[in-house]
Amino acid sequence: MKLFDYFRSSAAYRVRIALALKGLAPERTFVHLRHGAQRAGDYLALNPQGLVPALVADDGAVLTQSLAIVEWLDETHPQPPLLPSDADGRARVRSIAQAIACDIHPLNNLRVLNYLTGTLGVSEAQRDGWYRYWVDLGFEALERRLAGERATGRFCHGDAPTLADVCLVPQVANARRFAVDLAPYPTIVRIDAACAGVPAFAAAAPMRQPDAE
Amino acid sequence: MKLFDYFRSSAAYRVRIALALKGLAPERTFVHLRHGAQRAGDYLALNPQGLVPALVADDGAVLTQSLAIVEWLDETHPQPPLLPSDADGRARVRSIAQAIACDIHPLNNLRVLNYLTGTLGVSEAQRDGWYRYWVDLGFEALERRLAGERATGRFCHGDAPTLADVCLVPQVANARRFAVDLAPYPTIVRIDAACAGVPAFAAAAPMRQPDAE
Repeated sequence: MKLFDYFRSSAAYRVRIALALKGLAPERTFVHLRHGAQRAGDYLALNPQGLVPALVADDGAVLTQSLAIVEWLDETHPQPPLLPSDADGRARVRSIAQAIACDIHPLNNLRVLNYLTGTLGVSEAQRDGWYRYWVDLGFEALERRLAGERATGRFCHGDAPTLADVCLVPQVANARRFAVDLAPYPTIVRIDAACAGVPAFAAAAPMRQPDAE
Repeated sequence: MKLFDYFRSSAAYRVRIALALKGLAPERTFVHLRHGAQRAGDYLALNPQGLVPALVADDGAVLTQSLAIVEWLDETHPQPPLLPSDADGRARVRSIAQAIACDIHPLNNLRVLNYLTGTLGVSEAQRDGWYRYWVDLGFEALERRLAGERATGRFCHGDAPTLADVCLVPQVANARRFAVDLAPYPTIVRIDAACAGVPAFAAAAPMRQPDAE
């Protein structure tokens, strides 16, 4: 198994957490997004989207899209499970994961921020305002769910980490990096802290990676 | 089962297709996004994100996020299956679905376009340029995958519709509405046409819904 990774990528961070929770340590290649390495021909041949992460399985299958990779890892390496055993529980965990991966993160990744300041010529202050607006909108709804739903436990869903936490932790790390005030989101902060106490989450953190700058 | 729906929502469109493929016809409530009905207190109590779709199951469970809903439908109503039976196939289908649902659609939905023209004050031409930029970027990569991978068949994955097609068709409909030139994407256009020949896809189209304007 081989992971194409970049320390600062939230999507790659999700896969690193899942791999570590499963006790897997694949070979890694680092794709320097700020230097444009994701647009090199050999990488595009592997992943036409030119995004990280990509995971190459032992049989040569190329897997892309972080949530699809994590579900594949959970199916092929079932212990410990990252999704609940019941359909309603799985729907809840996937819905929390997607509220982050579809409704917050895509608006705030590097290529989008570059389009705003580059092509559209918005100021850095406006760009940061955009960033915080989508994080706040997403976190407000997520906080209400996590604080109000009985299925929430020590982690987003019960007392063991799931795909939801795998998505939450990188988004919180990103929000901190952009100086988003997290005081209105005590449940999110509490769960993030619980995750930080799990070695697999700690080991996957951006600044612990060999390519960190 | 009850669906909270809006004819123009791509995410609701996905769920309508999946329901129709499964032969399910739940009661529906229409949430008028352009009139702001998604921000009414009773709807926010149901779905704190204030987005459609939401599906209320017969046991009262509230399901949100279109991909999570489709996976739940596939688990609770397995025929016909919307995901392949093998882990690699499921990963491919989910990855195509997420390349659309995470990397194209979130950048182009109503609330984002409103932020661009409202808060950031960009022109309508710039907004439309933004729209087409993200569709083209996503479709270029998707076309390369669909045209080049042997798993592609009459539909995105083999010869029966899957979650990938459920996401592709609403995105193509949206692209047409914004006058994106689809000529560079012949495989996407071919698969979209194959889907149009399936009654469940046709019945789920925005202009066929009772709330269409």
